[in-house]
This record gives sequence, C-alpha cells and structure tokens, in this order.
Amino acid sequence: MGTERCVFCEILEGEAPARWVARDANAVAFLPLPEGALAPGHTLVVSARHVVGVQDAEPADLADAMTLVHRLSVAMQSVLGATGVNVLNASGPGSEQSVQHLHFHVVPRRPDDGFSTWPAGRSRLSTDAALPEALAAAMR
Amino acid sequence: MGTERCVFCEILEGEAPARWVARDANAVAFLPLPEGALAPGHTLVVSARHVVGVQDAEPADLADAMTLVHRLSVAMQSVLGATGVNVLNASGPGSEQSVQHLHFHVVPRRPDDGFSTWPAGRSRLSTDAALPEALAAAMR
Repeated sequence: MGTERCVFCEILEGEAPARWVARDANAVAFLPLPEGALAPGHTLVVSARHVVGVQDAEPADLADAMTLVHRLSVAMQSVLGATGVNVLNASGPGSEQSVQHLHFHVVPRRPDDGFSTWPAGRSRLSTDAALPEALAAAMR
Repeated sequence: MGTERCVFCEILEGEAPARWVARDANAVAFLPLPEGALAPGHTLVVSARHVVGVQDAEPADLADAMTLVHRLSVAMQSVLGATGVNVLNASGPGSEQSVQHLHFHVVPRRPDDGFSTWPAGRSRLSTDAALPEALAAAMR
C-alpha cells in the first residue's frame, strides 16, 4: 500500500504543491483546495502512510492523526478564535470520500459562522431491530 | 473533570440505559437515540473519561476512541455490508455538539443509501489570506 500513487502521496513526497500547516512524523496537515473549504482555516489532517480509511488503518495511524487533530484544534482556538471544531471523515466506497487516502477534515467553528455541518438527510435503508445485537456480537 | 455529570457519564456508570455495542477499557460504543440515527447501525464511540472535545482530550483518549472506531468500522462491513463509513465529531461551542462529552458518530454507508453527510452550506466568515501561515506558526 505504501507505494500506491495518489494525490496526497504526491503532496507528501513533495511532487505536488500544498499549503502546509504542519508535518509530524506520521501525520501531516495542509489546506484543502480553496473551493473545498467549508470555513476559513478548514484544514486536512492526513496520514503519512497510505491507507484508504479507518477500516484499513492501523491503530497507530489513527492515533498519530488524532494527536495532530488535537494540536490543530487548540491552535484554531488561539489563532482563529474558533470556539469549536468539527472533525469529519469519509472512509471507503459509498462514504463520499474525495481522495482515497486517510484524512480528517478539521473545520473551525464559531457561533456566528451561519452554517451547519450536521447532515440534513437520512439513509433510506430500513433498520433491523436485531442490528445492535449483531454488531455487538461481531465486536466481541 | 472526571466527576462532572452528563448523560454519557450516567450511561457509563450504569445509571442511564443505552443500547450497548462495545465496552473497551477507555472507550465504549452505544447507539444514539433512535430519532438521532442517520442510518441503520449508526453508533456512537464515546470516551470513557469525561472530556468535552478534541481540544481538551489527551492523545490517549483520542487513540483509544479511534481504535474502537476502527474495530467498529470493520464490524460494520461484515455485519451490515457497509462499504464505507463516515466518522463525525463536534467539539465545543458553536460546533453543534449535542452532548458535551467526547464522542464520534460512526455512520455506516452504502452506495444505495440515498443520502449525503457532506455539509451543504459554507461558513459566512471571510478568509484571511495569511491564515495558513498563522496556523502553521502556532503549530511549531
């Protein structure tokens, strides 16, 4: 997986430009394309290792990414006056994932920002009442 | 912070009911209230320790929560046929956080589920061109 080419791997290897925010050993942060930004300061936290989503990530990939999410969320408070943040991830087919390389959107929020990040719609699939038990059984 | 009362702390201490999916040492998973579910199998991964958001969480809180997110996302593939998942978090004032105790929504996705989790709106705040540099400086 480490040699699979994707635009985030190209950025990580310096072969494509990015507006950099941070580089840790195992996770990095840069800005999305301007047309993709939900709010001023919206930043992507990206696994340095190429994995697609939370499903195929190792716990260490996720831990390192979230440590950077934490650091970034604190910086957004001091630099942007962000009272809150949203952390948004899409992993795998059907999830609306834009780039098939693990990344978390960190979106600075303020009470006066005038928009919502919570999904307005709902799945059209119907719920099976046995579902929590089936999930719980699979988690044991 | 560990003694602060909130509905998730009450669930964690067995004082309020929940539809349980998993209990790890430092993170747990249960279902949201039915009216809050975005899709069948939508599950909350909740820090066992009371922190509000990613800003005041310790790296270990986040790592343990994400390890459970990973396990859950894999179970959603096998149990629900979820080809993907979304991981959604709101942290802090202005972020649309419903319960002030760190939690990640894990939403199973399929190409035929007929809805979108990506925000339709945008912040009305304007961007400062110097912002990436200011964020980057704060991260050093």
